[in-house]
Amino acid sequence: MKLATLNNGTRDGRLLVVSRDLTQAVYASTIVDTMIEALENWETVQEPLQHRYEHLNEGMLKDAFAFDPAKVMAPLPRCYQFVDASAFLNHGNIMEEAFDLDVKKDKGIPVLVQRQSDDFLGPREDYPFPCEEDNGDFEGEFAVVVDDMPMGISAKEAEKHIKLVMILNDMSMRTHLFRELGMGFGFINAKPATVFGPVAVTPDELGDSWRDGRIHLDMQVKRNGEWFGNPNGGGMDFSFGQVLSHLAYNRNLKAGAIIGSGTVSSTDWKTVGSACLAERRALDKIEFGEFRTDFLHFGESLSFEVFGEDGQSVFGAIEHKMVKAQ
Amino acid sequence: MKLATLNNGTRDGRLLVVSRDLTQAVYASTIVDTMIEALENWETVQEPLQHRYEHLNEGMLKDAFAFDPAKVMAPLPRCYQFVDASAFLNHGNIMEEAFDLDVKKDKGIPVLVQRQSDDFLGPREDYPFPCEEDNGDFEGEFAVVVDDMPMGISAKEAEKHIKLVMILNDMSMRTHLFRELGMGFGFINAKPATVFGPVAVTPDELGDSWRDGRIHLDMQVKRNGEWFGNPNGGGMDFSFGQVLSHLAYNRNLKAGAIIGSGTVSSTDWKTVGSACLAERRALDKIEFGEFRTDFLHFGESLSFEVFGEDGQSVFGAIEHKMVKAQ
Repeated sequence: MKLATLNNGTRDGRLLVVSRDLTQAVYASTIVDTMIEALENWETVQEPLQHRYEHLNEGMLKDAFAFDPAKVMAPLPRCYQFVDASAFLNHGNIMEEAFDLDVKKDKGIPVLVQRQSDDFLGPREDYPFPCEEDNGDFEGEFAVVVDDMPMGISAKEAEKHIKLVMILNDMSMRTHLFRELGMGFGFINAKPATVFGPVAVTPDELGDSWRDGRIHLDMQVKRNGEWFGNPNGGGMDFSFGQVLSHLAYNRNLKAGAIIGSGTVSSTDWKTVGSACLAERRALDKIEFGEFRTDFLHFGESLSFEVFGEDGQSVFGAIEHKMVKAQ
Repeated sequence: MKLATLNNGTRDGRLLVVSRDLTQAVYASTIVDTMIEALENWETVQEPLQHRYEHLNEGMLKDAFAFDPAKVMAPLPRCYQFVDASAFLNHGNIMEEAFDLDVKKDKGIPVLVQRQSDDFLGPREDYPFPCEEDNGDFEGEFAVVVDDMPMGISAKEAEKHIKLVMILNDMSMRTHLFRELGMGFGFINAKPATVFGPVAVTPDELGDSWRDGRIHLDMQVKRNGEWFGNPNGGGMDFSFGQVLSHLAYNRNLKAGAIIGSGTVSSTDWKTVGSACLAERRALDKIEFGEFRTDFLHFGESLSFEVFGEDGQSVFGAIEHKMVKAQ
């Protein structure tokens, strides 16, 4: 099924069930009020929500209304834990080659970054940042959302806790990122608010494209309406289950925790491009010996969308504009 | 006033108003149900809660009952953002000298670490971790809690958003910490759940000990009932306002965000000791040329407590035991 969160002026919004083709929606509120409550009570609400979803798809619900991605918040407007992985090693390899970085990685251990989760942005909100010299960048990613997951869980068991899949633009400020990476303590000014696609979907919505704990679909990225890249999510070097198991080694994860894939990246970059500017700039340097790609300017627009094997948009599109913070 | 969260089996618990001497408590529920709701509606609830607190202190409330720190959760059992600073540069300096670390710091920029906030532990819960070889360690710290705070705020303005002060034991797994520090992306396995003291207090409860955005009180740390250290919180090289302003450069902070001070640390360590084992071990190495202090073993107990200028316990004590995770 597909779920979204209507912006009704509250911090957690109001849960919507959205039709498979993303044209219609209904309130879920006879079952549960918000996305976080749904995840906290998944065993109870999953079935009635699924029924409502099926009836919506069949055109049987009189209280259905047109779904408007401009009126939704992030599917989870806030949550209690957000960790972003860097599960496409190709991205890191390109960055290290171009910028002569010496990132000490332990083979077999995924790189994860703890992130803030109190202020996620919706798919059509303007994206504010203070100044262009911060070198704003995007990162097209997939993410999963889990329910309560105990410490010490295996990758295989962890995968069973994945209840929803989303897309996101993990915005970065590269000027701060390189400085903060050198300090060793992770990202603060490098990572302002994260932007999520309109709907979250249960893994079954992805059909055969959800396998091996990976989403085998292209992340379609456009900059100012022009193709920028369409790398495939199947190239993760670590599955979401593996990432979750590493994370949960000595911590419990609570319902609503979001785990990102890291920038989708492909070794076949000459054909499929990239999902972030820093990687494209690194490739510029490797390919041409110079940067040919600018970081983001105010007024620029970005879009991120993923199409299923049936050609249908799975999550709806993130379509937003960069603006100067007031 | 002093506030705590009763463990009533729910994820957010039930808000209690606690008497100044920590002996009595009353439900706050005629005013507001939970700590997070209180912070989200601080302007509305602050005054009625304060009145209830005053009546409780005056012995006027018939529905008061004995306050039991064994029955409370962390004051905020979970929240949407937790950032830990390393605002006592002395701690970092000792660590770098002893372990020959090359941490690239920018002078004038506080070191902050983004942390998970979905699974905080209460002051008397056993602390589980998988194995002793992870080199478990404690860090006695102060923390502040803010209400909604906009992007780009000054240190002076940020300080006005500090609504509550708490103490915490920021548990660390040092084996993972050194590895993860080398990777640059912050802490994952190095930082399991954080443990908070029984009550959160408004800054006015600290009297003159709250000044310059710092808590000028000793953090009393005991290991297995024996004195380990009592460094003073006033030695922060960055005030909480400065830390908050740096953090909010390009992000909004939402109500309930927690910001830790980092391990309380003093240059006068020969007299006042330390608030963490790693620092004591570093000092062992500097002083004696060898480590004389073990990391934590299962079965060991720790306590953290802070006394006001009147000799009264301000936050109540964290008193907990290390156990093997099941």
